[in-house]
Amino acid sequence: MKNIKLTVAYDGTNYHGYQLQENAVTVQEKIENALNNVYRPEQIRAYSASRTDSGVHAKAQTINYFTNKNIPVKKIPVALNTNLPNDIVVADAQEVSLDFRSRRDAKKKKYCYYIYHSQFMNPFWRNYALHLRGDIIDIKKMKRAARSLIGTHDFYPFQAIQGTDPDIDTIKEIFSCEINDTEHPLIVFEIIGSGFLYKMVRIIVGTLLEIGKGRLDETIIDSIIRNQDRSLVGPTAKPHGLFLEKIWYA
Amino acid sequence: MKNIKLTVAYDGTNYHGYQLQENAVTVQEKIENALNNVYRPEQIRAYSASRTDSGVHAKAQTINYFTNKNIPVKKIPVALNTNLPNDIVVADAQEVSLDFRSRRDAKKKKYCYYIYHSQFMNPFWRNYALHLRGDIIDIKKMKRAARSLIGTHDFYPFQAIQGTDPDIDTIKEIFSCEINDTEHPLIVFEIIGSGFLYKMVRIIVGTLLEIGKGRLDETIIDSIIRNQDRSLVGPTAKPHGLFLEKIWYA
Repeated sequence: MKNIKLTVAYDGTNYHGYQLQENAVTVQEKIENALNNVYRPEQIRAYSASRTDSGVHAKAQTINYFTNKNIPVKKIPVALNTNLPNDIVVADAQEVSLDFRSRRDAKKKKYCYYIYHSQFMNPFWRNYALHLRGDIIDIKKMKRAARSLIGTHDFYPFQAIQGTDPDIDTIKEIFSCEINDTEHPLIVFEIIGSGFLYKMVRIIVGTLLEIGKGRLDETIIDSIIRNQDRSLVGPTAKPHGLFLEKIWYA
Repeated sequence: MKNIKLTVAYDGTNYHGYQLQENAVTVQEKIENALNNVYRPEQIRAYSASRTDSGVHAKAQTINYFTNKNIPVKKIPVALNTNLPNDIVVADAQEVSLDFRSRRDAKKKKYCYYIYHSQFMNPFWRNYALHLRGDIIDIKKMKRAARSLIGTHDFYPFQAIQGTDPDIDTIKEIFSCEINDTEHPLIVFEIIGSGFLYKMVRIIVGTLLEIGKGRLDETIIDSIIRNQDRSLVGPTAKPHGLFLEKIWYA
């Protein structure tokens, strides 16, 4: 048996997220269909590092799968891409040890969230950035507030209530959280952490935006973490501005 | 009567070009529907500077229209945008003199053509750049060849045969044609001219690519112009890499 690790990029616009669902088109379904075509008659299960939500994009999702067939790894990306729609692209395939697991073994993940800050939306960003109209945004305040995220904390309050696994470890380490507004009218959030809870990045972005607009105090993130007070978090930012950018393994 | 000049951006992916057509969805139809909703019961005709083809994008198309209503120009973009799909955005409206015509009065136009030069396509560029696999491309040769386009020439051989207006003036001035490959894996063509014939930019790009691949000699553009020999031009590059970037008026 072989264990194959894929690096996959996808535009999440037309999918109901990564994970298989009844009556909804998902990235996993498209990838497993492609795998099943290539490895027929084997039935392949594709395990992803992240279960991205409906509308969320990935520049480098990691997937692993097991097979008994001997297709050379160099040929796998082309074989899969010819069986995939053009909004899902396999960029790389590697054979890895049998004990590798894409989710469990991920050491760090980077997500970016894009905001298009302008009176009118740019049609080319409509599926890839949150449109924020001419509101005044205090980026410095947001940057200061974001510092409270750095370190190892219990991020339980930044987890969506619906769809939460009660057994999940909510203690995560955030290595960095940067906000960049040098490429006007874009505002780009970049967060790197040991792992992320369900909708955690979008809740963090939504909370930081409320701080930037002056609707929440810049100390709120610190209070939320210290008091584990879920009632203080801002609204969950829309999914289409979010990109899974990179995953690191040991 | 008032003459209003709009600046409009659109993602051409879902449209059969700018110009009205029977049984096909076009940008003009969407804009005229929005104008008719806003100016009801007036029936408004939208005149564009360029008739972009099916799949071609515009970052700044110019449109003018005539009306007897007194909607303040400042309110026009929002009024129209609420009546437009999110892949068409009115970014600006100005009142201009009654004799202004978006097409006739355009002095210069800039088009860009994007190529994604990589073994695998990036899904986020799939509708906005031509995918060119790992072929070796000689950018220096293409740059040298592009110099022959500069100046005032009869561009008749670079015009598509189908759909050509026999009365059109085929003599145009090209002010610049640059090819930039500093943002790998993107190759960006940028061409500025007094005007462009039907499919002219895409035929130029297609010819330059054949030169870059070594399939056509770098002197071919000079020969085509000098001998007015349409048989020597390369294939028409696909529409989805093309963007109408800017239009200048006096």
